[in-house]
Amino acid sequence: MLERLKEEVLEANLELVRRGLVLYTFGNASGISRQDNLVAIKPSGVPYDTMKPADIVIVDLEGKVVEGSLRPSSDVATHVLLYQAFPKIGGVVHTHSRAATSWAQSGREIPCFGTTHADYFYGPVPVAGPLSDEEIQGAYEHNTGLAIIRRFETLDPMAVPAVLVCGHAPFTWGKSAANAAYNAVVLEEVAEMATRTLIANPHAKPVAQAMLDKHYFRKHGAGATYGQAGGKGDSC
Amino acid sequence: MLERLKEEVLEANLELVRRGLVLYTFGNASGISRQDNLVAIKPSGVPYDTMKPADIVIVDLEGKVVEGSLRPSSDVATHVLLYQAFPKIGGVVHTHSRAATSWAQSGREIPCFGTTHADYFYGPVPVAGPLSDEEIQGAYEHNTGLAIIRRFETLDPMAVPAVLVCGHAPFTWGKSAANAAYNAVVLEEVAEMATRTLIANPHAKPVAQAMLDKHYFRKHGAGATYGQAGGKGDSC
Amino acid sequence: MLERLKEEVLEANLELVRRGLVLYTFGNASGISRQDNLVAIKPSGVPYDTMKPADIVIVDLEGKVVEGSLRPSSDVATHVLLYQAFPKIGGVVHTHSRAATSWAQSGREIPCFGTTHADYFYGPVPVAGPLSDEEIQGAYEHNTGLAIIRRFETLDPMAVPAVLVCGHAPFTWGKSAANAAYNAVVLEEVAEMATRTLIANPHAKPVAQAMLDKHYFRKHGAGATYGQAGGKGDSC
Amino acid sequence: MLERLKEEVLEANLELVRRGLVLYTFGNASGISRQDNLVAIKPSGVPYDTMKPADIVIVDLEGKVVEGSLRPSSDVATHVLLYQAFPKIGGVVHTHSRAATSWAQSGREIPCFGTTHADYFYGPVPVAGPLSDEEIQGAYEHNTGLAIIRRFETLDPMAVPAVLVCGHAPFTWGKSAANAAYNAVVLEEVAEMATRTLIANPHAKPVAQAMLDKHYFRKHGAGATYGQAGGKGDSC
Repeated sequence: MLERLKEEVLEANLELVRRGLVLYTFGNASGISRQDNLVAIKPSGVPYDTMKPADIVIVDLEGKVVEGSLRPSSDVATHVLLYQAFPKIGGVVHTHSRAATSWAQSGREIPCFGTTHADYFYGPVPVAGPLSDEEIQGAYEHNTGLAIIRRFETLDPMAVPAVLVCGHAPFTWGKSAANAAYNAVVLEEVAEMATRTLIANPHAKPVAQAMLDKHYFRKHGAGATYGQAGGKGDSC
Repeated sequence: MLERLKEEVLEANLELVRRGLVLYTFGNASGISRQDNLVAIKPSGVPYDTMKPADIVIVDLEGKVVEGSLRPSSDVATHVLLYQAFPKIGGVVHTHSRAATSWAQSGREIPCFGTTHADYFYGPVPVAGPLSDEEIQGAYEHNTGLAIIRRFETLDPMAVPAVLVCGHAPFTWGKSAANAAYNAVVLEEVAEMATRTLIANPHAKPVAQAMLDKHYFRKHGAGATYGQAGGKGDSC
Repeated sequence: MLERLKEEVLEANLELVRRGLVLYTFGNASGISRQDNLVAIKPSGVPYDTMKPADIVIVDLEGKVVEGSLRPSSDVATHVLLYQAFPKIGGVVHTHSRAATSWAQSGREIPCFGTTHADYFYGPVPVAGPLSDEEIQGAYEHNTGLAIIRRFETLDPMAVPAVLVCGHAPFTWGKSAANAAYNAVVLEEVAEMATRTLIANPHAKPVAQAMLDKHYFRKHGAGATYGQAGGKGDSC
Repeated sequence: MLERLKEEVLEANLELVRRGLVLYTFGNASGISRQDNLVAIKPSGVPYDTMKPADIVIVDLEGKVVEGSLRPSSDVATHVLLYQAFPKIGGVVHTHSRAATSWAQSGREIPCFGTTHADYFYGPVPVAGPLSDEEIQGAYEHNTGLAIIRRFETLDPMAVPAVLVCGHAPFTWGKSAANAAYNAVVLEEVAEMATRTLIANPHAKPVAQAMLDKHYFRKHGAGATYGQAGGKGDSC
């Protein structure tokens, strides 16, 4: 079932590898069929170079395995919660990519220092958490999802498709698994640039709101002018 | 028309990819036929690995498409303005390369910390902008070009073939599209070195004017001693 | 003799090369046969690209060569001491990998800034030494091993399978040569992230003890939930 | 003439490319025949991927071309002066490699922060210069050589086979062109580590003299214990 979704999810996972965002078996990507309320997700701890579409696990929105002989990613509870809370998203990615994870570890949001950031994230990339000891000791992955959702109470997840879980690492999402992976790659680049920006100028300031508006809406929404006619301004 | 120029512009765009200066569809290179007053420029949002010479768009000096079925790069208005203002240049490149963009985000010019810099850029790499809210909300790409031109009122664009647009990213230029790409690659290396220089010594000083003169004129102008006889001191 | 162990040790050495942890002939990996009390270790100063299983040297637990025509790694005395002191380990790796070595040079332990670290190292990666002048001038490699063992008097080497030798470089270990190499690769990534974390926030704090517990025990021990059924939570 | 030396010099130049130490045509390596008092050096500004042994230029110890149709590297005057002043060296390399050049730009010597450094450079990597305006405006490349030689009045060039020319970049040397290139590669790694060391601990201290002695003499001189019997402790 959901063969095409499984292939898309496998491909999104492999894109993370090709772009250097994962080490060994770190990281996971998933995609959802909104029609079926089923999520296809990477299995846990399986090497990428032998992973096949049939290894992708199908779970329901509670994280219960519906199809597949392998265990789903240990972060599955976070993924399904995000699908429940953010009805417009079609894919979720979690990585421990170097620069974005370093920002998550620093406990600081990534300021919007420039237009590379503004093209994809409409404002700072926010930090969720830290989780309380009870949240960690309890249903940890579920509570990680709750912390993210709490952080987005006043944010539009389609305008800021990324979060840094404090002391942990980033999650990104998008309209598909491929788009979530694309956002993970861009987030890593934006995080690398933000680190270097602080070396060049420890007092660097975010761009003006007008710049944020200009670049974000140049690529997104009805007035988009980037890309080819009919396109939506990005490659996925 | 302008088949050779389109091939050169395609090649300059691909050089940016090979040198690791672009992620996905970021970045754009163009070249001009001064005889025809026509500019060949990368199409917007098209993947590099399938780009053909026929995809390169021909525009006039107002940025109006003269040939080609694709939309030109969204930065076309900046390119054409630079061609108008800097009559000796034959190519323009815009990238979001990591280190140079980080300096642009920092709002600080890149000091001439050493001879690698002095060999190509005769003085600091300057910052243009930031743009006012009105400039951003109006003809943004055109106004970006105006800000660059304003910054070069007292600078020779052939001696300093690069600029950092504040909160955005670098533009470079040169006597051809290939030379503009070459300068973009060197700028990225110079920016990486400047970042590391500040880590080793936060109070690092620029080189003396005599050193700047020596290295720049060793590679450029009538007294150049670098490269083979008849050459002009660089590879393009 | 010990043909399979020699192949495993060769493979662990080559994994260090593939992962970019060694320059030229730097670095060495070994494995032990607990049944025979014999250690298989990389020869000293032999290029990796021509190394064969037959080049791997077999030594006893005093470091005396039992089989092989080449000299063992100059660090053999440290390896054998670790095998004596840590009876559960099956492999030892020493590298001069860039980021971990930089932390060793800084004289500071790597704080557990996040879950990537907590997944593999249950607490900060400690610093051993510095050695006294007498220890350096005497049986240096043996004394390096003693300094590591001293540092682990109150630590469980299986829970923290890595150490930074002050002013020198890291040693890692694990249940096999492959696992020790895996831990060396993860340590390098964790060290890179810790460096970047300090740039983003010079006052970054380690994660809470609850987070350390959660992530470490999610991958290790009886209650592990990572990886496939029957697995122990990592790839080696 | 000197066909074998030309091949060795070409190979040393290509090793710099393979190790990522040069961008475009930056950098140059040379080797000397002490018997003939002739130096083989890279031509100026010729792309590496088409360079042949026949392109290598032969010059005398005054830098005068003795054989070859191409111009020698613009740094030839520095090379020949080093061969005159340091009678034991057989090769010289000059690069603008990223990390070492950043230290040269910072104007600070690279402290011996650890054993990777001590294995190859017996003490800090010193800074030569800066040159006076007169030295720059005069016989610049010759004066660069004089500044290096001045800096080594109280140093043994065989024990510290590298220097950072202030505001410029490193020169390394060794018993052959290959060995000089090897030292350039190690210097770049040592410089990268020193940069990261300062991020982890801005107050990091050099290793004790005893450690410097131990590691340096473990690889060099009569008592060397590194590498295979009869070897001298490094790969070249």
